[in-house]
Amino acid sequence: MQTFIINSEGYNVYVGNSYGPLQTFLEEKKYAKTFILADTNTSEKCLPKFTEKLPLLKEYDIIEIDAGEAHKNIDYCIGIWKMLLDFGAGRDSLLINLGGGMVTDMGSFAASTYKRGIDFIQVPTTLLSQVDASVGGKTGIDMDHVKNIIGTFTNPEAVFIDTDFLYTLPRRELLSGFAEMIKHGLICDSGYYFDLQSNAMGSVDNAMIFHSVNIKNKIVLEDPKERNIRKALNFGHTIGHAVESYSLAHDKDPLLHGEAIAIGMICEAWLSHTKTGLEESALTDIKNFLLAYYPNYRIPEGAFAELAEFMKKDKKNEKGTINFTLLEGIGKFVINQTCTEEEIRQALVLYNGLFK
Amino acid sequence: MQTFIINSEGYNVYVGNSYGPLQTFLEEKKYAKTFILADTNTSEKCLPKFTEKLPLLKEYDIIEIDAGEAHKNIDYCIGIWKMLLDFGAGRDSLLINLGGGMVTDMGSFAASTYKRGIDFIQVPTTLLSQVDASVGGKTGIDMDHVKNIIGTFTNPEAVFIDTDFLYTLPRRELLSGFAEMIKHGLICDSGYYFDLQSNAMGSVDNAMIFHSVNIKNKIVLEDPKERNIRKALNFGHTIGHAVESYSLAHDKDPLLHGEAIAIGMICEAWLSHTKTGLEESALTDIKNFLLAYYPNYRIPEGAFAELAEFMKKDKKNEKGTINFTLLEGIGKFVINQTCTEEEIRQALVLYNGLFK
Ligand SMILES: NC(=O)c1ccc[n+]([C@@H]2O[C@H](COP(=O)([O-])OP(=O)(O)OC[C@H]3O[C@@H](n4cnc5c(N)ncnc54)[C@H](O)[C@@H]3O)[C@@H](O)[C@H]2O)c1
Ligand SMILES: NC(=O)c1ccc[n+]([C@@H]2O[C@H](COP(=O)([O-])OP(=O)(O)OC[C@H]3O[C@@H](n4cnc5c(N)ncnc54)[C@H](O)[C@@H]3O)[C@@H](O)[C@H]2O)c1
Ligand SMILES: [Zn+2]
Ligand SMILES: [Zn+2]
Repeated sequence: MQTFIINSEGYNVYVGNSYGPLQTFLEEKKYAKTFILADTNTSEKCLPKFTEKLPLLKEYDIIEIDAGEAHKNIDYCIGIWKMLLDFGAGRDSLLINLGGGMVTDMGSFAASTYKRGIDFIQVPTTLLSQVDASVGGKTGIDMDHVKNIIGTFTNPEAVFIDTDFLYTLPRRELLSGFAEMIKHGLICDSGYYFDLQSNAMGSVDNAMIFHSVNIKNKIVLEDPKERNIRKALNFGHTIGHAVESYSLAHDKDPLLHGEAIAIGMICEAWLSHTKTGLEESALTDIKNFLLAYYPNYRIPEGAFAELAEFMKKDKKNEKGTINFTLLEGIGKFVINQTCTEEEIRQALVLYNGLFK
Repeated sequence: MQTFIINSEGYNVYVGNSYGPLQTFLEEKKYAKTFILADTNTSEKCLPKFTEKLPLLKEYDIIEIDAGEAHKNIDYCIGIWKMLLDFGAGRDSLLINLGGGMVTDMGSFAASTYKRGIDFIQVPTTLLSQVDASVGGKTGIDMDHVKNIIGTFTNPEAVFIDTDFLYTLPRRELLSGFAEMIKHGLICDSGYYFDLQSNAMGSVDNAMIFHSVNIKNKIVLEDPKERNIRKALNFGHTIGHAVESYSLAHDKDPLLHGEAIAIGMICEAWLSHTKTGLEESALTDIKNFLLAYYPNYRIPEGAFAELAEFMKKDKKNEKGTINFTLLEGIGKFVINQTCTEEEIRQALVLYNGLFK
């Protein structure tokens, strides 16, 4: 199997056959201690595969946390810090984050702050974390239902993507990651967007993951601290994040990140149509594509004020306004757009109206 | 009054008349919101002086925390994060840390992780924080009685040192900072060491603070991430930190940082004498100087094992050994020394024996 290699800010992302490079990495670095962070699911479904393919990794301690976004918080982070401390992790230790974006985000935040920073590598096991959380250096945890409100920008030593992990991933989770791939197409590669449409989730393969990681990587390399063009990646995320936070706070079975982003993309495509020239036909195409795959989530009118509150608390805002990235066309983004609360409300009403 | 300016890693440290530059800084940056973090003491004793000298700083929110090292922990840090969130701090906000090292360390950690990093400035109000915590980019909080175990390396936008704050500082706190100045002399400037001795705390002035900050700054600029020569600054700190942690865990009125470091310097001067050639006369000089100013703290023999545990947990250690910086002479440090537990025990016994 081919290995695709992407050079990011001073580290490599390996897609495909990545155990050779990982083995070499471990042999060269000679860490005094190695820790593997996994959640209850990845510890069962991914850890055995992982260690089997790495016969030379003999000694390691496992830090297991409860699965789910609700646990991506400071309490669990403290738990990780204390485990590292109790197990005697020094600055010459390595943390391997084996899991979805919840594990890679929180694990990398814990590593970036433990003893002012120890080395970590990412082994993303969900489609979402493979195509999205794998590059960009964002680490973080949630607080008071605000996503990633606490975090750092810290790069891993390397990222190793193995698509084999996806076999055990529930279809809902797969679709959650697929939403980010659609986003990559929508913001800068219309060809890729239409490819994804015709491929229709038939098979997400290494080449597609490589393509998505590459798109994201090019953007973050140009603007690592999100001062300008990195904001392209926020398409669908201003409203999407608010819907996600709202759902996390209220629903027993909350929306997944990608599901919320799909809703956000529909709403923001509508805003793009009314404000930045996205054609009606393109809007219809986006709506149909996304509605075919993602749940119909009814957002009660009474929730709009709370959603607006979440948007105002979002990290990306400056000077009290709510910042949007919109589309001028499929494959053409435009950053730093602002919308009024009334426009946002209309977008949500429109979304609700799609499945009467 | 003269303003001394020190260029550190991309930011300036102003000593002396620093309100002019601070005023200019605020005018240029035009932060959307300004927060001042202070503890119960600095909010009473320093905040009025500070705002009086900055008439143009009109709007700000105050975050007040309880004073004392025992509160430099994750619970208080969460409190700061939540206040920032509730008061609507965005990435275009500024946090002013007004206080001793406890406030500047925890405040800078909170700022460096809130929304993945907002700007902060340091206004150190104790001698210790002026001469030591003011440069080097170390942020941090304690956990499980281990000092600064969680933190980042993040530089402030600027540091403004005003020695006027020292008038209200208790003499014990002043001496705590003085210990770090003595350390600066001991590791690289014998002339400065003897100056401090003859000055004998008569007056700590801007020029002396400038001299100390300069020594530390030169060292950290050469080695920001503490891979080699920055370890010079750890003289007295391997044993000192352990004694400090021990005292924090057991004493009602625990030792101050500088007081513990003074003990550490006596012990490590003795280790220097037995291992790295520090002359007997120099050892005696150091002992006499420090014992004249710092408390006689009896360390029970039964505590040695616990102290060794603290030393092993110290961030600076690699590959299971305990790392020391020792002296070859006054003004000449040598890094990466290791001592056996028996040698450390002997140093502690010797220290105990000094005041039978
Ligand atoms: N850092 C970034 O740039 C970035 C980018 C996008 C998303 N994120 C974050 O990522 C998180 C979402 O990521 P996610 O969707 O991967 O969430 P997740 O980590 O919670 O994983 C989703 C679920 O799948 C399970 N799982 C993971 N791998 C599996 C496998 N191979 N087989 C079976 N089950 C498996 C998990 O245990 C979990 O229950 C969010 O917290 C989001 O903020 C971060
Ligand atoms: N970041 C670094 O490089 C660095 C270097 C050295 C020490 N430190 C940290 O600094 C801390 C110790 O600093 P500290 O000694 O300044 O402690 P501190 O901040 O706890 O201050 C000591 C006491 O003096 C009070 N105080 C502060 N300014 C005052 C003033 N002007 N008038 C009256 N009272 C005042 C405080 O409220 C507190 O009670 C430790 O946590 C240590 O780890 C950090
Ligand atoms: Zn996303
Ligand atoms: Zn110190």
